[in-house]
Amino acid sequence: MTIAIIGIGLIGGSMAISLKENGFADKIIGVDKISDNLDKALRRKLIDEALPLATAIEQADIIIMAIPVDALETLLPKILDQVDQQIVMDVGSTKWVLAKAIENHPKRKNYVATHPMAGTENSGPEAAQPDLFLGKCNVICDQEKSGTDALAQVKKLYESLQMSIVYLDSKSHDVHTAYVSHISHISSFALALTVLEKEKDEKRIFELASGGFGSTVRLAKSSADMWIPIFEQNKENVLDVLDEHINTLAKFRTLIIKNDFSTFHQLIEKSNHIRKIIK
Amino acid sequence: MTIAIIGIGLIGGSMAISLKENGFADKIIGVDKISDNLDKALRRKLIDEALPLATAIEQADIIIMAIPVDALETLLPKILDQVDQQIVMDVGSTKWVLAKAIENHPKRKNYVATHPMAGTENSGPEAAQPDLFLGKCNVICDQEKSGTDALAQVKKLYESLQMSIVYLDSKSHDVHTAYVSHISHISSFALALTVLEKEKDEKRIFELASGGFGSTVRLAKSSADMWIPIFEQNKENVLDVLDEHINTLAKFRTLIIKNDFSTFHQLIEKSNHIRKIIK
Repeated sequence: MTIAIIGIGLIGGSMAISLKENGFADKIIGVDKISDNLDKALRRKLIDEALPLATAIEQADIIIMAIPVDALETLLPKILDQVDQQIVMDVGSTKWVLAKAIENHPKRKNYVATHPMAGTENSGPEAAQPDLFLGKCNVICDQEKSGTDALAQVKKLYESLQMSIVYLDSKSHDVHTAYVSHISHISSFALALTVLEKEKDEKRIFELASGGFGSTVRLAKSSADMWIPIFEQNKENVLDVLDEHINTLAKFRTLIIKNDFSTFHQLIEKSNHIRKIIK
Repeated sequence: MTIAIIGIGLIGGSMAISLKENGFADKIIGVDKISDNLDKALRRKLIDEALPLATAIEQADIIIMAIPVDALETLLPKILDQVDQQIVMDVGSTKWVLAKAIENHPKRKNYVATHPMAGTENSGPEAAQPDLFLGKCNVICDQEKSGTDALAQVKKLYESLQMSIVYLDSKSHDVHTAYVSHISHISSFALALTVLEKEKDEKRIFELASGGFGSTVRLAKSSADMWIPIFEQNKENVLDVLDEHINTLAKFRTLIIKNDFSTFHQLIEKSNHIRKIIK
C-alpha cells in the first residue's frame, strides 16, 4: 500500500511514522508546499520520497490530507478531480464547510471525512511522534456518503493506529468539537494573553507559575495558522459555546462581587463532576 | 527536629514524606480535625504519630500549617498564643488577609509566611506524593517581620526540599498569584461547567475529549473547600484579573462576529509568546 500524505506536520508526520511502523503502508510519499518541511521529513525518515502533488496522487492508493482547514476547502475538490480509484481522506478539525464543498462532486464516494482526536500544542515535522494516536478516538463523518471500499480501507487504517472509531454527521461533529476542543483553545489563548498583558514582569510569571497555570495555558502555544481557519469555519458553534463560557465567568464574577461564596461553592462542586468523565 | 503538620492533605502529606526522607525531620507529628485523614496518614506512614493540637504544639520545633486559608485566618493567631520558641509557618495560597490577622501579635517573629508553588488537582492524604516540591519555587512573604532564626530555619526547610525561594511582600504576592494561579482555576472551573451544561451527552465528552480539553479542565477537579476561601480572601485581585479575562474573551467574540480573523490571528500570535516563558 502506497500512502501519500499532503502536509507533513504534527498530524501528517505522526501518521507517517505509525503507518510505516505498523506495516499498513509499504511506502509513504510526502507532499508539502513548504520545501523545508519535506527536507526535515526526509532527514527524519518520516517519508520515503518527496513528490509533487500530481505525481503523488497518481502513485498513491490512499491520499491523506493533513493541512489547515482553509487549505482543505480549496484543495480537496481539486484532488478529487484528479483521482481514479484512489481513496482520499482528510484529518481536519471542522467538517461541515468541507462536506458542503464536495457534496456534489462526482468522486464523492472516493472520499472519507475523518478527524482523529489527537494532537499536541506543537506543529511541524519536528513535532511528529510515534503513538500520538494510540488509544485515542477517531471520528468518521457522513459515512453513508463514502463508498464501501473507501470506508473499509480508512477504517482499517485507523484500526491499525489502534484508535476507536465514532460515527457522526458533519454538523454534529462541529457542534461537539466546539465544546470539547475549540473552546479549550480559545480559553487558553485568552488566558495567556490576559496574563501576559497584566503581568508585565515576565520573570515573575516564570518563577511563580506552577503546573496548574502551565496546563491551562499549554494550548496557547498552538499555531494561529491552524486554529484561525477552524474558528472561522466553525464560527456559529464556537460563538455559541463562547457566549456560554463568558456567561459562566460573568456569573462567577457577580457571585464574587455579591460575596455569595456559598452559591459559588455549589457551582464549583458541580464543575468537579468533570472528574467522573475525564480521567 | 520534630515537625508538627496541621492538615495532612496533599501539601501537608507531601511535606511529611519529603522532610522525613531527606532527613530534615526526625519525627513528624500529624494533626487533623478529620480523624479519617489521620488514620490514612498513619497507614501510609506519612506521619509517625497523630496527636491533639495542644500536645503537638508543645512537642514540635516547627509547626507547619497546611489547611485552607479561611481556617488559617482563625487558627494561626490561636497557635501563636500557645508557642514559646517554636517556629510556625503556613503554606496558604493567599497572604494579605493572614498578614493583617497577626501583624500585631506578640509572637509575630515566630511566624514565617510561605507559599510553595506546587500542587495537583487532588486532595487528601491519599494525594500526597514525594517530589511534589522538587525544583519548584517557594515564596516567603514579609521576611523582615519574621525573626532571624525562624527565617533561617524555614529557608533550610525549603532548601532541603530543593525549592528555589522568592521574596515578596504579602500584597504583591496576592496580586501575582491572582494572575498565575487563581485565574487559571476560575477559568478551568468555568470551562468544565460550560461544557457540562452544554454537552448533555457525557459519553460524547468522554469519547471526543482529547489531551487539550483534559489539560484545560484538569484544575476543575480541585476542591471547592480549598479554593472558595482563596477567592474570598483575594477577592479584589481575582476580580481585577477576571474582568480582564472576560474582556479578552469578549474581544475575541467581537472579532469572530465581525469576521476580523486577521486581528484575531495577531492576538493569537501574541498569546503564543507564553511559549517563551512557560516551558
